[in-house]
Amino acid sequence: MSNAEHNPAISIGIVIFTNITQLDFTGPYEVFAKLPNTKLYLLAETLEPIQSDRGLRFLPDTPFAQSPPVDVLFVPGGPGIDAKLEDRNFLDFLKTQAQTARYVTSVCTGSLLLAAAGLLQGYRATTHWLSLDLLALFGVEVVPQRVVIDRDRITGGGVTSGIDFALVIAAELYGEATAQSIQLGIEYNPQPPFNSGSPQTATDNVIDSVKTASQNRQDRRRQIIQKIVAQQ
Amino acid sequence: MSNAEHNPAISIGIVIFTNITQLDFTGPYEVFAKLPNTKLYLLAETLEPIQSDRGLRFLPDTPFAQSPPVDVLFVPGGPGIDAKLEDRNFLDFLKTQAQTARYVTSVCTGSLLLAAAGLLQGYRATTHWLSLDLLALFGVEVVPQRVVIDRDRITGGGVTSGIDFALVIAAELYGEATAQSIQLGIEYNPQPPFNSGSPQTATDNVIDSVKTASQNRQDRRRQIIQKIVAQQ
Repeated sequence: MSNAEHNPAISIGIVIFTNITQLDFTGPYEVFAKLPNTKLYLLAETLEPIQSDRGLRFLPDTPFAQSPPVDVLFVPGGPGIDAKLEDRNFLDFLKTQAQTARYVTSVCTGSLLLAAAGLLQGYRATTHWLSLDLLALFGVEVVPQRVVIDRDRITGGGVTSGIDFALVIAAELYGEATAQSIQLGIEYNPQPPFNSGSPQTATDNVIDSVKTASQNRQDRRRQIIQKIVAQQ
Repeated sequence: MSNAEHNPAISIGIVIFTNITQLDFTGPYEVFAKLPNTKLYLLAETLEPIQSDRGLRFLPDTPFAQSPPVDVLFVPGGPGIDAKLEDRNFLDFLKTQAQTARYVTSVCTGSLLLAAAGLLQGYRATTHWLSLDLLALFGVEVVPQRVVIDRDRITGGGVTSGIDFALVIAAELYGEATAQSIQLGIEYNPQPPFNSGSPQTATDNVIDSVKTASQNRQDRRRQIIQKIVAQQ
């Protein structure tokens, strides 16, 4: 990280909201926070505590109205996106930031919010495997990879892909040696006890159980997105 | 997860403290929170916000004094452990909980806190690769693996090992099918962009940069632990 002094300071804005999937951003946060000469902003509409979909509560540090233009705009996902897909103020904040950001990025279903703000049309992008078809409804060129880079758009797949995604961004910003040092610092040498992390490798029973548990949410989300797309 | 109704409710107590490494527990949190019929407690000395070593702020939900006996006691790590290694009230809370817990567990340098509380002597256990020799000072049988199970002690290695660790615990508690469904839900199909996540695979330069950056902290920690061990 000896090149820190030679780089300009970089700002990364992490946009959070109620019912976020917390690991979508806490994984990347750990990587980003170890970058040299980088300032993180945990952005939310207000400074009130934000509760994740599973109850973990965070304190944002900067309200949207006081956010500087950030170099990296990062939007995580989670069940809470459904309420934001039609939230004009929220989407306008993303659009405004995207005009000056060096990178516009997302993990998991955060890409659906970027698409709802019109920021992914004409780009290749990805999302959580359960929502790939929903991202396509927006006219985005969907690529079912773990991390997709298309010019200044960088998107990651579901939840834990955020760690891979953040290491890719770390290398983009500060080079591979810095990214590798961070990887070693967080001992990111994954050894999943099962080979069930993708619909390509999980058993049919496991896939069915996840699909069934999420069916109602995915159906509601599809209706919201179809309505948004019809109005465009 | 169809067997939820047939299992008794399980409680998992996650112990947090100032200057914790947040991903040590937010990774496992995401897994634990998806377990059927399971209640999580985010335990801290008080209900004041807890700030991580890199500035992320969390709201605990239960102070130590109001914690029920939990089935799974889970202690994450981070730079903040140094202040807790000699904190009698903190260590007493761990000891008391361990008397009735079904599993006593840690990720990263959380195992040093368990050892300081006398809860790992006579067990095989692991920790962050930078602190393996410090765990051995406590007389623990150190095993440099990503997840180590020894009877009712389950310990994980550095930071991101928490996800592997939590999936192992999910399988212990509710069986492999449940753990695999959670793995698929969080799309845990890791694809690190570099092969630098362990001192066995990182380059010498990368290892040196991480060791140099942590040298002062590790030296201080060693002094604290040597003092503790000398007094036992």
